[in-house]
Amino acid sequence: MQSCNSPPPQRRLSAHFALAIVQKNTGFVALKHAYRPLDPASLPAALAAISQIKARLGGAPSGWNVREVGDGNLNLVFIVEGPDGGVVVKQALPYVRLVGESWPLPLERAWYEANALRIQAQFAHALTPEVYHTDRDMALIVMEFLTPHIVLRKGLVKGIRYPKAAGAIAEFMAQTLFHTSVLASNASDHKARVALFAPNTALCKITEDLVFTDPYREAVLNRWTRPFLDDIKQQFENDVGLKRAVSGKKWQFLTEAQALIHGDLHSGSIMVTDSDTRVIDPEFAFVGPMAFDVGAVIGNFLLAYFAHAGQRGTEPADGYPDWLLQQTIDIWVLFEKNFRALWSTGATGDAFGNGLFETPEGKSGLRDEQDRFLQNLFKESLEFGGCKMIRRILGLAHVEDMESIADPAMRARCETFALRFGRELILGAGGFSSIADVAAAAKHSVQP
Amino acid sequence: MQSCNSPPPQRRLSAHFALAIVQKNTGFVALKHAYRPLDPASLPAALAAISQIKARLGGAPSGWNVREVGDGNLNLVFIVEGPDGGVVVKQALPYVRLVGESWPLPLERAWYEANALRIQAQFAHALTPEVYHTDRDMALIVMEFLTPHIVLRKGLVKGIRYPKAAGAIAEFMAQTLFHTSVLASNASDHKARVALFAPNTALCKITEDLVFTDPYREAVLNRWTRPFLDDIKQQFENDVGLKRAVSGKKWQFLTEAQALIHGDLHSGSIMVTDSDTRVIDPEFAFVGPMAFDVGAVIGNFLLAYFAHAGQRGTEPADGYPDWLLQQTIDIWVLFEKNFRALWSTGATGDAFGNGLFETPEGKSGLRDEQDRFLQNLFKESLEFGGCKMIRRILGLAHVEDMESIADPAMRARCETFALRFGRELILGAGGFSSIADVAAAAKHSVQP
Repeated sequence: MQSCNSPPPQRRLSAHFALAIVQKNTGFVALKHAYRPLDPASLPAALAAISQIKARLGGAPSGWNVREVGDGNLNLVFIVEGPDGGVVVKQALPYVRLVGESWPLPLERAWYEANALRIQAQFAHALTPEVYHTDRDMALIVMEFLTPHIVLRKGLVKGIRYPKAAGAIAEFMAQTLFHTSVLASNASDHKARVALFAPNTALCKITEDLVFTDPYREAVLNRWTRPFLDDIKQQFENDVGLKRAVSGKKWQFLTEAQALIHGDLHSGSIMVTDSDTRVIDPEFAFVGPMAFDVGAVIGNFLLAYFAHAGQRGTEPADGYPDWLLQQTIDIWVLFEKNFRALWSTGATGDAFGNGLFETPEGKSGLRDEQDRFLQNLFKESLEFGGCKMIRRILGLAHVEDMESIADPAMRARCETFALRFGRELILGAGGFSSIADVAAAAKHSVQP
Repeated sequence: MQSCNSPPPQRRLSAHFALAIVQKNTGFVALKHAYRPLDPASLPAALAAISQIKARLGGAPSGWNVREVGDGNLNLVFIVEGPDGGVVVKQALPYVRLVGESWPLPLERAWYEANALRIQAQFAHALTPEVYHTDRDMALIVMEFLTPHIVLRKGLVKGIRYPKAAGAIAEFMAQTLFHTSVLASNASDHKARVALFAPNTALCKITEDLVFTDPYREAVLNRWTRPFLDDIKQQFENDVGLKRAVSGKKWQFLTEAQALIHGDLHSGSIMVTDSDTRVIDPEFAFVGPMAFDVGAVIGNFLLAYFAHAGQRGTEPADGYPDWLLQQTIDIWVLFEKNFRALWSTGATGDAFGNGLFETPEGKSGLRDEQDRFLQNLFKESLEFGGCKMIRRILGLAHVEDMESIADPAMRARCETFALRFGRELILGAGGFSSIADVAAAAKHSVQP
């Protein structure tokens, strides 16, 4: 018998029961027996059983300091420190942490993340966290404790400048996107990556729903700054042209298997210091459109811009809004430069090669093709970037850039700038001749 | 010791040795033990062991009539007839039949073909052969004996008209391409198909090399009507604009996972009578660009056109060239009509739906989006069609439409018309406002 004071049944779902729901809803049945969610009490013993980790931490497990620090939407994250060093332990939960046990999510995402980290490290080793240990059954990754790094988004909210970040982010994208595409790779290896990540559907579905669909319809999980944004939310729901364009981007997201993309490359997935940059959390990885990653970065820098410039004007004394726009410019310019350089020197893949462009005239033609390819990638990145901006304001998952603005009227003002500009990127990307154009238009759009 | 009269070692490779090469070259190691190539002597006993097939044929295996009839490039094909009925037995060989044991090819293609036949039958049952039995280990499919059907290409070479073929081909393409895309399907099912067929890389590589690469470079397997086409072959090798455009189509072939495509939908993969049409041989199937199938059909009808009109003029007394052009028109027009009808009534997939276009204005916008989608598919189909025409004249595998023209000067004349028009389709597809425009231009291009 339940006592009257028991929490309602849906709050009492054990993780194991939630897992059973996952299995029922997704057909995911593997590995269920070994899994158990860890906590600060159980973690030291679990790590002590991994000799490499035990050695890295040093001393006795009873002396290790364990903190649960997960502030993301999905997982458990622990920092474990011993006398000789520290590690980060990331463990998937069988549900969406942000929503709760009512939204099951496959544990296998940790395994996809581990695979993505491994592949990304092949091409951008210095820009990823080192992985020490993975356990597919436990949905666990033990990795480098990045310190004194902080999440880039938090730094941007505080108005901190990171002189190396733009270059590092551009390099990460160029290396990972180029090398996991058929520009660098043969078709057989490419399709092996496609097949490896194709079952990561549950994470892709989050993007399909929350980025490309829900913000443009009534959906129970949508949130926005009421009542200030009620009108624009309604306008976007009725904007058939915008919905057509966003649905076209969803089609690309669903069908274009261009490269192994990170899949969630916002400023919360990047950790920084003055001199170091690491890209973390690729659990949304799959072989998808390159522009989705590039657009995520651009869109999130623009969100930071509209948060700052909306509050303090476009030219406060510290010049921080302009610095944010300059980072946006630098990221695209450096990405394009790096990507083109890789293509020009390392195009060993099955696309645009095979001896067809060896003559001087052929090489010139291939450069023209690179121009066309990158121009198209630029346009698509702006479009995806616009989608990413809008979803963070009208959809379920918001960002600290805006959420940290306490006054809702001011927050809505910043968000309105971002919404309008996001829409302009989606519908008018082809009208921007360069990223500097985009930055100038963003600045121009923040006018009294 | 070898005697002096022994055939050279490379001709004496046993099938089993070739299989070992396949395994070495492709990493394909599964199923090797059970496989043995069948022949007319061993086939009755093998079929008699399958009770359903034995019953279908009737009588004693010793009385069954077995003919090896494979005229394709890759496989063994037998017709087996007993007193009660007949079956067709298709078995993959561990190498490319057209080239020989020196070009190994995975037996697993038979299993991909069986999967494609199963899925295609779900959506176009009356237009596919019935499959009675498949054996993955033996790389074997036992299926309906289509009689009195002949291969469409052979009928077209003879100048026969098939009043039902255009409608049936259009229906097959619309049903299979629509229903295996995210217009009709959820993303999870779509990605399961992507993953299922992704390892069919060896067959895709044949297309990548022979359609999109070799015709535009020196390659030992290329063949063309010498010396008549020497100049145009050289021109195409030096045509950087053409090579850029064809490489762009290869990129699409390598990266666009839109629908389960047949992958080899030429007139040799279609069997017809006056009243019945069946699409066979989908061993090249994978989740790729829809336009590749549509383009294959259009390109092959145009090849038939240039073979007839090049020899007999555009308006011989029997009007057959015009009939071929009318089929080309009908196929696109009916495909487009069918595809649009399916989309308007059965768009249950994750793309372009999810309640975003329910209002009258939304429905109108979705119709505009369908127009845009189909206009783009039309353009891409013409481009792929042009690629398919050129590869049949300058590449390894030719077609009977042209090969049956005994006089090489006349054959070269027909082929030159086709090559020039194929190039025009690739470089100028966007300039055609309708398929009737394309047909008119094809006719106009055959002038003295």
